[in-house]
Amino acid sequence: MEGKFKRILYGGDYNPNQWPREIWDEDMRIFRDARINSATVNVFSWARLQPSEETYDFEQLDDIVDMLSREDDDIVLATSTASLPAWMVKNYPEVARTDYEGRQHKFGQRHNACPNSPIYRKYAEALASRLAERYGSNPHVTCWHVNNEYGGECYCEHCEKAFRVWLRKKYGTLEALNAAWNMEFWGHTVYDWDEIVLPNALSEGIGTGKTAFAGISIDYRRFMSDSILANFTMERDAIRRYDKETPITTNLMGTYKGLDYFKWAKEMDIVSWDNYPRYDTPWSYTALRNDLMRGLKDAPFMLMEQTPSQQNWQQYNSLKRPGQMRAQSYQTLARGADTIQFFQLRRSKGACEKFHGAVIVHAGTEDTRVFREVKQLGTELEKLGNATLGAVNEAEVGIVFDWDNYWALEYTSGPSEDLTYVDQIQQYYQFFYDRNIAVHMIPCDADFGRYKMVVAPVLYMVKEGVKEALERYVEQGGVLVTTYMSGIVDQSDNVYLGGYPGPLRTLAGVWVEEIDALSPKQSNEVIFQDGTKASCGLLCELMHLEGAECLARYGQDFYRDMPAVTKNRYGDGTTYYIGTRMEEGLEKILESAVSDSQVKPVLEGTDGLEAVCRKKDGCSFYFVINFQDKALPVPPALAGHMDMLTGETVKAGDMLAKYDVRIVRVEDSASQE
Amino acid sequence: MEGKFKRILYGGDYNPNQWPREIWDEDMRIFRDARINSATVNVFSWARLQPSEETYDFEQLDDIVDMLSREDDDIVLATSTASLPAWMVKNYPEVARTDYEGRQHKFGQRHNACPNSPIYRKYAEALASRLAERYGSNPHVTCWHVNNEYGGECYCEHCEKAFRVWLRKKYGTLEALNAAWNMEFWGHTVYDWDEIVLPNALSEGIGTGKTAFAGISIDYRRFMSDSILANFTMERDAIRRYDKETPITTNLMGTYKGLDYFKWAKEMDIVSWDNYPRYDTPWSYTALRNDLMRGLKDAPFMLMEQTPSQQNWQQYNSLKRPGQMRAQSYQTLARGADTIQFFQLRRSKGACEKFHGAVIVHAGTEDTRVFREVKQLGTELEKLGNATLGAVNEAEVGIVFDWDNYWALEYTSGPSEDLTYVDQIQQYYQFFYDRNIAVHMIPCDADFGRYKMVVAPVLYMVKEGVKEALERYVEQGGVLVTTYMSGIVDQSDNVYLGGYPGPLRTLAGVWVEEIDALSPKQSNEVIFQDGTKASCGLLCELMHLEGAECLARYGQDFYRDMPAVTKNRYGDGTTYYIGTRMEEGLEKILESAVSDSQVKPVLEGTDGLEAVCRKKDGCSFYFVINFQDKALPVPPALAGHMDMLTGETVKAGDMLAKYDVRIVRVEDSASQE
Amino acid sequence: MEGKFKRILYGGDYNPNQWPREIWDEDMRIFRDARINSATVNVFSWARLQPSEETYDFEQLDDIVDMLSREDDDIVLATSTASLPAWMVKNYPEVARTDYEGRQHKFGQRHNACPNSPIYRKYAEALASRLAERYGSNPHVTCWHVNNEYGGECYCEHCEKAFRVWLRKKYGTLEALNAAWNMEFWGHTVYDWDEIVLPNALSEGIGTGKTAFAGISIDYRRFMSDSILANFTMERDAIRRYDKETPITTNLMGTYKGLDYFKWAKEMDIVSWDNYPRYDTPWSYTALRNDLMRGLKDAPFMLMEQTPSQQNWQQYNSLKRPGQMRAQSYQTLARGADTIQFFQLRRSKGACEKFHGAVIVHAGTEDTRVFREVKQLGTELEKLGNATLGAVNEAEVGIVFDWDNYWALEYTSGPSEDLTYVDQIQQYYQFFYDRNIAVHMIPCDADFGRYKMVVAPVLYMVKEGVKEALERYVEQGGVLVTTYMSGIVDQSDNVYLGGYPGPLRTLAGVWVEEIDALSPKQSNEVIFQDGTKASCGLLCELMHLEGAECLARYGQDFYRDMPAVTKNRYGDGTTYYIGTRMEEGLEKILESAVSDSQVKPVLEGTDGLEAVCRKKDGCSFYFVINFQDKALPVPPALAGHMDMLTGETVKAGDMLAKYDVRIVRVEDSASQE
Repeated sequence: MEGKFKRILYGGDYNPNQWPREIWDEDMRIFRDARINSATVNVFSWARLQPSEETYDFEQLDDIVDMLSREDDDIVLATSTASLPAWMVKNYPEVARTDYEGRQHKFGQRHNACPNSPIYRKYAEALASRLAERYGSNPHVTCWHVNNEYGGECYCEHCEKAFRVWLRKKYGTLEALNAAWNMEFWGHTVYDWDEIVLPNALSEGIGTGKTAFAGISIDYRRFMSDSILANFTMERDAIRRYDKETPITTNLMGTYKGLDYFKWAKEMDIVSWDNYPRYDTPWSYTALRNDLMRGLKDAPFMLMEQTPSQQNWQQYNSLKRPGQMRAQSYQTLARGADTIQFFQLRRSKGACEKFHGAVIVHAGTEDTRVFREVKQLGTELEKLGNATLGAVNEAEVGIVFDWDNYWALEYTSGPSEDLTYVDQIQQYYQFFYDRNIAVHMIPCDADFGRYKMVVAPVLYMVKEGVKEALERYVEQGGVLVTTYMSGIVDQSDNVYLGGYPGPLRTLAGVWVEEIDALSPKQSNEVIFQDGTKASCGLLCELMHLEGAECLARYGQDFYRDMPAVTKNRYGDGTTYYIGTRMEEGLEKILESAVSDSQVKPVLEGTDGLEAVCRKKDGCSFYFVINFQDKALPVPPALAGHMDMLTGETVKAGDMLAKYDVRIVRVEDSASQE
Repeated sequence: MEGKFKRILYGGDYNPNQWPREIWDEDMRIFRDARINSATVNVFSWARLQPSEETYDFEQLDDIVDMLSREDDDIVLATSTASLPAWMVKNYPEVARTDYEGRQHKFGQRHNACPNSPIYRKYAEALASRLAERYGSNPHVTCWHVNNEYGGECYCEHCEKAFRVWLRKKYGTLEALNAAWNMEFWGHTVYDWDEIVLPNALSEGIGTGKTAFAGISIDYRRFMSDSILANFTMERDAIRRYDKETPITTNLMGTYKGLDYFKWAKEMDIVSWDNYPRYDTPWSYTALRNDLMRGLKDAPFMLMEQTPSQQNWQQYNSLKRPGQMRAQSYQTLARGADTIQFFQLRRSKGACEKFHGAVIVHAGTEDTRVFREVKQLGTELEKLGNATLGAVNEAEVGIVFDWDNYWALEYTSGPSEDLTYVDQIQQYYQFFYDRNIAVHMIPCDADFGRYKMVVAPVLYMVKEGVKEALERYVEQGGVLVTTYMSGIVDQSDNVYLGGYPGPLRTLAGVWVEEIDALSPKQSNEVIFQDGTKASCGLLCELMHLEGAECLARYGQDFYRDMPAVTKNRYGDGTTYYIGTRMEEGLEKILESAVSDSQVKPVLEGTDGLEAVCRKKDGCSFYFVINFQDKALPVPPALAGHMDMLTGETVKAGDMLAKYDVRIVRVEDSASQE
Repeated sequence: MEGKFKRILYGGDYNPNQWPREIWDEDMRIFRDARINSATVNVFSWARLQPSEETYDFEQLDDIVDMLSREDDDIVLATSTASLPAWMVKNYPEVARTDYEGRQHKFGQRHNACPNSPIYRKYAEALASRLAERYGSNPHVTCWHVNNEYGGECYCEHCEKAFRVWLRKKYGTLEALNAAWNMEFWGHTVYDWDEIVLPNALSEGIGTGKTAFAGISIDYRRFMSDSILANFTMERDAIRRYDKETPITTNLMGTYKGLDYFKWAKEMDIVSWDNYPRYDTPWSYTALRNDLMRGLKDAPFMLMEQTPSQQNWQQYNSLKRPGQMRAQSYQTLARGADTIQFFQLRRSKGACEKFHGAVIVHAGTEDTRVFREVKQLGTELEKLGNATLGAVNEAEVGIVFDWDNYWALEYTSGPSEDLTYVDQIQQYYQFFYDRNIAVHMIPCDADFGRYKMVVAPVLYMVKEGVKEALERYVEQGGVLVTTYMSGIVDQSDNVYLGGYPGPLRTLAGVWVEEIDALSPKQSNEVIFQDGTKASCGLLCELMHLEGAECLARYGQDFYRDMPAVTKNRYGDGTTYYIGTRMEEGLEKILESAVSDSQVKPVLEGTDGLEAVCRKKDGCSFYFVINFQDKALPVPPALAGHMDMLTGETVKAGDMLAKYDVRIVRVEDSASQE
């Protein structure tokens, strides 16, 4: 298996257009010094490329591309359509978005185009075409980067009309639409497509995150995700008319809520993303997001952006500690990245990102801690070469992540305002992370059969086919773990009647009669069969066994002694149902499931370390990283094998300092004793 | 005395229109099982009844009414005007409201009609007329339910014009209006009625709850309450043209701020309300609200809505504990309800209330805890029969609750942002609640002479006639309790000059020279004549005695030793003036007032229990409920009398478990001997 | 040196127009009783003076002016243009502002005119002209008070067009503008002046306080400050056409962010301001604001407004304690005031300020604590006479306060959201306040040579000429103290490249390589050369010495042992650079700087007291105030000199009670021997 690139791209966003020509040469010298081999250019240059409706000017971009080509750099060429030129907003106010409050915006900021504006679409496509025509045949153009960090939403009249078209296509008839949205409730029945209005603060929206009708609001999210995706595919197709081969991407943003990335990934040649943890973000959070980005296409991805030192837009933009950027880079590489790219190579001198870290800081010198760390990493990556390029990450566990569920669960009014989606997923992910059990983040329509264990927390919405797929999976020996607030609604947010967890009831062997909500000041506890207790809260489901075995019961309140956690045989497999948010003790349940499914960690003896394996050409590459505050021993199993970064053989008892890394190559015949 | 109904209505909101026909028969069977004898229908069906501007379709409603009539159910027939049909908003955008921010809304949600829209009024009246014409003669239609939970506000041009008409009628001349609003301040004098604009975020509004000119803002609230009331009376009158007798109501919402319910109640045949405590709402809060609803007409009322188990729209929608719904129902019955109705009978499968509790849950089965509790209560009510129907609640204490004061006090800028209205009333109510002293919640223009004691906390605005009425009351032997921030302004929020508490100064025998505001971090203390101390805060008034006796003095700060609480003889009566918010020790003062007025509790020996008495036909019905966490003995005075729920004789020493209830019938000759 | 007035004005806002004629005579009697000698009138009377577009009516104002003239009162005559008449908003909606959200407002509140509205400007100028023509020759008119508390902002089309004109004047070409705003970033280049839109929530604004492009947003603030200033100068010039001499002012508001008061002061004859501390505002805060107001023109100023007792618009409007108003008044006088004026003389009976304290309260009597204190102060001021009138405050220390920095620093995105401007200045001011070292608050373009020590905290933006002026200052022996986040950007918020602190690097002798941001939960510490430690946080700059001496190093984290505080010789002077926010230990550094510069306190032996000196005609007037909770001895150096308030000689060992004051006159030959 090979990746999309000939080498690990090491570079990042580069905006020479912001600088006088004499700086450029200095940049080239410094990049070489740092072993930077790639640059992402032209991300925000529409106003320069097209200074008016009739004129285009590629002179400066030609210079930039020529220069980078001479340097033999890999060019990630952006299309510049993520920020409207001022003239376009002035001439065609419709290109600017109308916000959730119903206010049409004026010129300003970025990511500001209405995705359904014909004018925007016309000119964005034209620009992408011209760029592809001009630069598509340049062999140094290694990747196309369409737009930038797609996101946001628009509530203008163009979008309203496009929404109606989208709905007509989805539902065919108003009868079907009224039924799907349960419009008989509150007498919302529509008799004409034109009666449908976008769900915002002036119509169905409640506050900024809730809605009176989840049906229309979820459909609006799907529609908006599709609308913006259509912007992407439009540019992609325009590029493809001139460049048949170069991979095309756009940079995603981890667990960003607004876009259904699994659907998007199908249209992208390679996934890329921007990784911006806060100063206090746990490493397991970035791990999940890396795994999710890899999972989108189940393939290696690009790290399009990270900061070499600090962000500027968070509350407290602390510096990355010495070694932290390197460790973060290897974490990303370990989990599937084939590139390490920074935002940005040279720090802007003005506007809102001027305090965002960069390879070359305002001082303009290489004599900085940050530069030295960038150069060290560059040197190491050069040494690492293409060994891991395109290598795969295998996993025996799949964790379901689904944007429809994300939207639906968080739109729902009740039982608790504190029920957020990603936090629930993260809690389950954490268990596997702590044990270095490799995980794939998978969509609802994944091939579950590939996994020994499938974890689907808060699988609130069970879409068409999912029930059957899960039943088939468990029947054939799979181990399924699911939780409270699962199996409740169909794709339109209509409840499956007949008793929760609806389509999962047979699988789980339980009936959930009631769902209690606890305030943060309240808690309950579960008591395991061995008598140990663990605190729980948020939601407590009142369950009845329908064939399942009870693993733990509630310890308090009127539902004391009712089952809280169950396990059910179904065919050759097992379903675990966890009816409450475990604040403690989740490991007892999941360890049992791991045991049932015979899932193994990546390596033994990795206590406290993060250990990840990528495989390629009959070799396993073990990435071992120490994120703890104290030194830890290298896993014994790696002794005798070569550390790719030093070329030295790992010895038993070798210690890893904080933030230190080993990438150990093990021939497959030799791996795991 | 008799009530409005022939039996206790037991039922609630029922929306068979949301379900296929086959479910209906199942519903009928389940209702019978639960002893449900009533259903509230047609609450949100405008779009179905009138699918377009020209057409009406009553076919489904005919079916529903026929079915319920066959079941001999009491039908509470709603008029469906609380949610606009989509076609109407599309054809006539003016029917939708313009919000406080000045944004006209589009189709969505409910309670969304501009009350002054001619189009809305035309079609709402037409619908009510047609319904009355069609169903008014059906003997099973036991009650008309106009609209639903009236509330909200509109700031559109129609309302602006109607406001000017309303003002012209109230003030006659601009001179009078300018004087009333003190428009010389900041040079706001208006010279033309058309210069008056609605007070919202774009004009006089400050934040969402304050205003630069309380005069216009209070008048706007009165106007908006009147405007919406005119919607109600319009439908009521339309119904009366076809149905001369059936009582007409609309469901109110306790201490909802937006509408002057005392004014509304005059236009309603019977008051009904929706009772939705939070998981942590004290029982005294629901008690006050029940008493207030009864007080609106000084008559029995309907409990139009409560949930059998949980709400969906609160932060944490916990389940009602076993017995809690029953106890809440009896609390409501005790305090004057002649109906117990749920929202709702069958749980919706979609849209924002799908997680709201119902008699029949999504599982669709009777085999649920919730259903069993509903059925138990139904069985008990059947047994109770009509014994308490229409029975009266007597009280020797009146507590003043006044919407003008509510609005004016909370609009006022200074002395403290924390000075809220209902919280102050609740604190005084609590004293009587804790002692089972029956209370009537009364308006400013009540006949005070009916009460031994009148409590008027924060009687900030003293409207025309109130001074005289209170003076007459006290002169003739009444005991009046009033507090800080009383007697300050007239109906237009202009201060009574000459010294606080203005018109109450003679009555209270004190002059309040200054009003100190304390932050939540600060406190003072009062020292009673017996030397005991009690903490106080929020506001501390600096008083001088003008004939009153000092009951307690401040213990700290520069006004140490100044009077904090006083008592004044006036004619044959007494006025207590409490110049600060007592955080402790309020009972010392109120016990003294109770002693002066010889007010008695409903029953002796009720420590910890809630005890309420309703009287009818020479009998007293004592409702005794235990809301404590431990069992408590039944009051000894009830021994030897019959418990209506069990038919058994109460014995001395009988214990009441948590949430348990007794309804004990005592012949008047025997009671309180 | 003499002041602008013949006596200390003692009075305040007076609105007889709100009251019937009979009250006026009573007012005059009470004012005389209180030794009130001045009244500020006509602040909000536009609607009365000009009841329609064509008519003016000065009859009532004539009466008021005549009455006050008869009383020989000093009249501060306002122009009434701070609140639009209702008819003007109705006839010309454009006169009302459009807010940050883009919403055009309707009639309401005050300070509501668009400063660029031609209609508003036409009628405001006309009114000022007519007033000046009518009353300018009245010798009792002692001061003109234009408008009131100028502030706010407008985002209407008139302002947008005016902004473009302002920009064209400033930048000349779009090339220059694009460069200044760094518009190549995000491709924001504008090719036509009309493409520029105002930076609000619909364009470049982020939240309410941040921006995507600081360049345009800072320029907008400058433009808006200038636009409103042009309203002031327009009225001022109109008055000057009829009245050549009477001083013209408008009341400022301390550290109010919206207007560049140093620029404003150049156009004002005398500065006046409104002093409204909260119940918990430290006295050092009001001291700084008084010093700032004096510093604006480096001249005595007017205290235009303070409350005799309480405010109404704060969260908790507590009463001023006995003696507190007097102490606050003397603090103001000490720091340069030549007037003591209240808002207001008689308390309004209606509208939003009715609970604002006044000399005559709603009771309408003089028999109040507040009145007695006002009268006591009036009697004392009468006794004090003109001794201090026009006296100067000298200082050896200048602290830089600069509105451009205020705006720029708080617009900046990163490194920390908690980095506010005034709080940093206040921290440095506090040191001098605590030691009674006199300070001048000075602008960036001050004559630094006047000071032994210049303190410039967070001198983030270094405007043209400032680098050179500071270098000259230090070279010639000055002592400069500056801090973290200094020397970063030029006037357009573009970073000085080459290494922080940019233009201050040579002066400071350090290079700041990185800036770490700490959350409130984090801290570091500095270790001084003597081994003592002190906590620090917010920002920690990582510095390298370039000639400077290290005074303290960081004690923790990876930059442990790097310099945190430095001192650098430059020419004959010294620069201190403090690279972190010191939560403790700042006094160690500043004491060293004080020692270097030989700066002296106003008096020795003032521990715990506030001591301020004003000088005039060869005399020093020492104001000594006790703001502590315990009595403190009068400074020994004042023994034997006369207390102006009592006429008695101060004795060694005399004690000052809480809030007590001495004003001691010392002949210059005798002072500080």
